[in-house]
Amino acid sequence: MNDSSLVPDEALPLGFRFAAVKAGIKPSGNADFAVAVADVSASAAAMFTGNRVVAAPIIVGRKHLARSAGHVRVVAVNAGNANCATGQIGIVACQRVCSAAAETFQCEGHEVFPSSTGIIGVPLPAEKPIAALPEVAASLGATPGHFAQFARAIMTTDTRPKVACASLKLDGRLVRIAGVCKGAGMIHPQLVPHATMLVYLFTDAAIEPSGLDTLLRQSAEVSFNRISIDGDTSTNDTVLLLASGASSVQVDSTNTSFLGALTEVCTSLAKQIVEDGEGVTHVVELRIEGAATDRDALTVAKAIAHSPLVKTAWAGCDPNWGRLMAAAGYSGATIDPERINIWFGEQQICKNGGRVANFDEAAAHAYLKQREFIVRLDLGIGNGKCRFWTTDLTAEYVRINADYST
Amino acid sequence: MNDSSLVPDEALPLGFRFAAVKAGIKPSGNADFAVAVADVSASAAAMFTGNRVVAAPIIVGRKHLARSAGHVRVVAVNAGNANCATGQIGIVACQRVCSAAAETFQCEGHEVFPSSTGIIGVPLPAEKPIAALPEVAASLGATPGHFAQFARAIMTTDTRPKVACASLKLDGRLVRIAGVCKGAGMIHPQLVPHATMLVYLFTDAAIEPSGLDTLLRQSAEVSFNRISIDGDTSTNDTVLLLASGASSVQVDSTNTSFLGALTEVCTSLAKQIVEDGEGVTHVVELRIEGAATDRDALTVAKAIAHSPLVKTAWAGCDPNWGRLMAAAGYSGATIDPERINIWFGEQQICKNGGRVANFDEAAAHAYLKQREFIVRLDLGIGNGKCRFWTTDLTAEYVRINADYST
Repeated sequence: MNDSSLVPDEALPLGFRFAAVKAGIKPSGNADFAVAVADVSASAAAMFTGNRVVAAPIIVGRKHLARSAGHVRVVAVNAGNANCATGQIGIVACQRVCSAAAETFQCEGHEVFPSSTGIIGVPLPAEKPIAALPEVAASLGATPGHFAQFARAIMTTDTRPKVACASLKLDGRLVRIAGVCKGAGMIHPQLVPHATMLVYLFTDAAIEPSGLDTLLRQSAEVSFNRISIDGDTSTNDTVLLLASGASSVQVDSTNTSFLGALTEVCTSLAKQIVEDGEGVTHVVELRIEGAATDRDALTVAKAIAHSPLVKTAWAGCDPNWGRLMAAAGYSGATIDPERINIWFGEQQICKNGGRVANFDEAAAHAYLKQREFIVRLDLGIGNGKCRFWTTDLTAEYVRINADYST
Repeated sequence: MNDSSLVPDEALPLGFRFAAVKAGIKPSGNADFAVAVADVSASAAAMFTGNRVVAAPIIVGRKHLARSAGHVRVVAVNAGNANCATGQIGIVACQRVCSAAAETFQCEGHEVFPSSTGIIGVPLPAEKPIAALPEVAASLGATPGHFAQFARAIMTTDTRPKVACASLKLDGRLVRIAGVCKGAGMIHPQLVPHATMLVYLFTDAAIEPSGLDTLLRQSAEVSFNRISIDGDTSTNDTVLLLASGASSVQVDSTNTSFLGALTEVCTSLAKQIVEDGEGVTHVVELRIEGAATDRDALTVAKAIAHSPLVKTAWAGCDPNWGRLMAAAGYSGATIDPERINIWFGEQQICKNGGRVANFDEAAAHAYLKQREFIVRLDLGIGNGKCRFWTTDLTAEYVRINADYST
C-alpha cells in the first residue's frame, strides 16, 4: 500500500510535524511509537474514556493539560502496551517517557501528551520509547507520508490506517483539519468531557482551548459516542484536538462552518473504526426514530448494537427481526410494541409490532447480504431519534479475541 | 438416553400428570407440545420476563392467573414457535389453544396456563397443538418417564433435558418438589414479580397462592436472576410454580425448610441452563465481594458476564484479567481500581489493581482450561456481594445463532 496517498498533498494542517519508529514494544516488530510535534505550543482539547479504570497515560495526560492550561507541544503515543492496571509503576513509566520527550523536543514535561494502547496489566517498558526518541527527532516531517506513518504506528488489531481530512475557507483563507485514529475492538466509547480508541485531530485554525473544547464535545457526541463494535468501553480511549494557529485564521466556539467540517472528519473516522472492527463482515447504520426522547432513541440503539443475538443474526444475513424487537423491549426505553415499525433499507419488515402481511423473506435476506446496510426502527411514540453505527458479531471476532497460546 | 432415569422413582410430587406429543410445530419433527395436568386445581405463582415486548402466552397467562386468583389445572407448552410479535392474531391463537385444552381436560379456560418458545415473529399454527390434544389426554401419566418426556418436548436449542428434584420431611410427612426447564440462548432472565427460559416447578405441599408467590420470588432472585449466557433478555421467560396439596402438608411463606429445598431445585435448574448454553465450553461462577452494596456487586457481575472481550478470553483459556478490570470500570458500580483484588480459583492474579508480583501465567492458563472455574473479584469497598453463573462466548455460539439458510 502506498501510504502517502492516504492524505492528499496540501491537506495537512500547517504547524505540525509527524514521525513514527519501531521502538520494540509490539511483538510483531512493527512501528509502535508515534510522535506529533507542534512547531509552537498548540491549543488543546481532549476527551477521555468514561471507564472508572483508566490507564496511566490518561491520568498523566489530564494533569498535563490542566497544568499547561490546555496547551500541547508533543503528542507521544505507543502501541503494544496500554499501560493500564499498572499502578504507580505505570504512572512513573509514563512520566519518564514524557520527561525524555520534553528534553528531546525542548519543551516542558507538561506540554507532552502521552497515550498508550495494547494489552492491559503488563508494565510498560519505558526504556524502549525513550531509546527511540533520537530516531523520532531525526525523522520528523510534515508530508502526507509522515502522517500516514503516524497512523500506521498506532494500530493494534486494526487492519488499516485511518485518516480523514477536511478544509474550509474562512475570511478568504484556508483552514485545514486532519484526523487520525486507531481502534477495532473494545469499541464502545463513552467519552466524557475530559475514550482503546485513540483519535488525534489537528487543525491550523487559531482557537483558544476553551472554544476548542466546546467544538470537540459537540463533534464527538454525534460521531465517536455513536459507535459500538463489542460494547466494551476501553480504559484508554482518548480524543485529542490540537490547533496550531498557523493559518492565522481565528475561530471561536460558535463557528458553525468549522464545527461542520470538524464533525465531518470525526464522523468519517468513527465510521472507519466500525468498518475495520474485529472480524466484521457487516456494518450497520441504525436509525432509531419516534422515541420519547433522543436519549431513549440512543438507549434502544445501544441495546440493539450490543445484543449478541441481533449481531449474530446479521452475521448470518438472517432477517430475524424478532431479535430487534426483543432488544428494544429490554432496553429500558419507553416502548409500545404495537406501535413499532421496522425497515431493512426501503423494505418494511414489521408493522405495528407484527410481521408485514407481504413479508418477502428472500428480499430481506438478499438486502442483509450486503456488507453495509441500514436498519430503521420507528418506535411511534415521540420525536426522539439518533443514528448509530455498529457491526455484526462473527466467529472471526471470537477467534481474534480468544486467540491465546502459551 | 434412558430418559426415565432423569428423575428417581417416588420423587415426583403427587397430584400431577404429564404428557408430551409431536404436534408438528418443530421443523425437526420432534415432540413439541407438552402438558401438565393437576388432578385438582393447584395453587399457582408465576414470574415473567422484564422485557417490555412480551409474547402472547404471557399476556394471556397473566390474565388467567388473575382471573383464577392464582389457580391452574393445565399447563400447555409448545416449543418451535414463541408466539411473540404476533399481535392480536397471536393472542387469539393462544386463547384458542387454552379453550381447546380446557374442553379436553374439563376445566375453565382461565385455569389453563399457556407457554410458547421458539422463533419470534411467526404466527403460531394453533390448529397443530389443538389437533394433538386427544393424543395428549390419552398419554398422560405420573411416572418419571412421563416427566422426562415433558422436559424433552419443551427443548429448543437445548442439547439435553433439565430437571431437578428435592424432598423434605415436614411434620413427619414427605413433601416433594420437582422442576423442569429449558433454555440455552437468549438467556439473561430479569424476572419481575409477574421471565425464552421456561421453568415449571411442581410440589405436593399445600400452599396458598400468595405464600407460594413469596417463596417463588425469593428462590428465583438468587437462582434464575443470577445467570446470563448472552445478556439477551427474552420476551417469553416464564417461571411457574404449582402446588397440588396432595401431600396434605400445609406450608406457609415463612417456612425456611421448604424455601431452602425450593431454592436448591431452582439453583440446580439455573446452573443446568448455563451448563447447556449455546456453544458453551466454559461455565464460570463469578463471586463478587467487597462491593458498596449487593446491587453494585450484581452490576459488576453483569458487566463481566456480558463483556464479549471477557467471554472470548475465557473461550481461549486466556488469563487476561485486564478485561475484567475494564468491565468492572465501565459497569457503573462504585469502584476504586487500586483496591481491586482478583483470584482465579485459589490463585491471586491481581492485587490492589495491579498484577501480583509472582504472577504465574502458566498456572492461570491451566486453571482456565477447566470446563468449570471460579473467578472471584473483591472490590475492597464494602460488604456487598453476589454469586452469578455465566459462560464463555465461542465461535460455536456465533455459528448456532448466525445459521440461516434460505
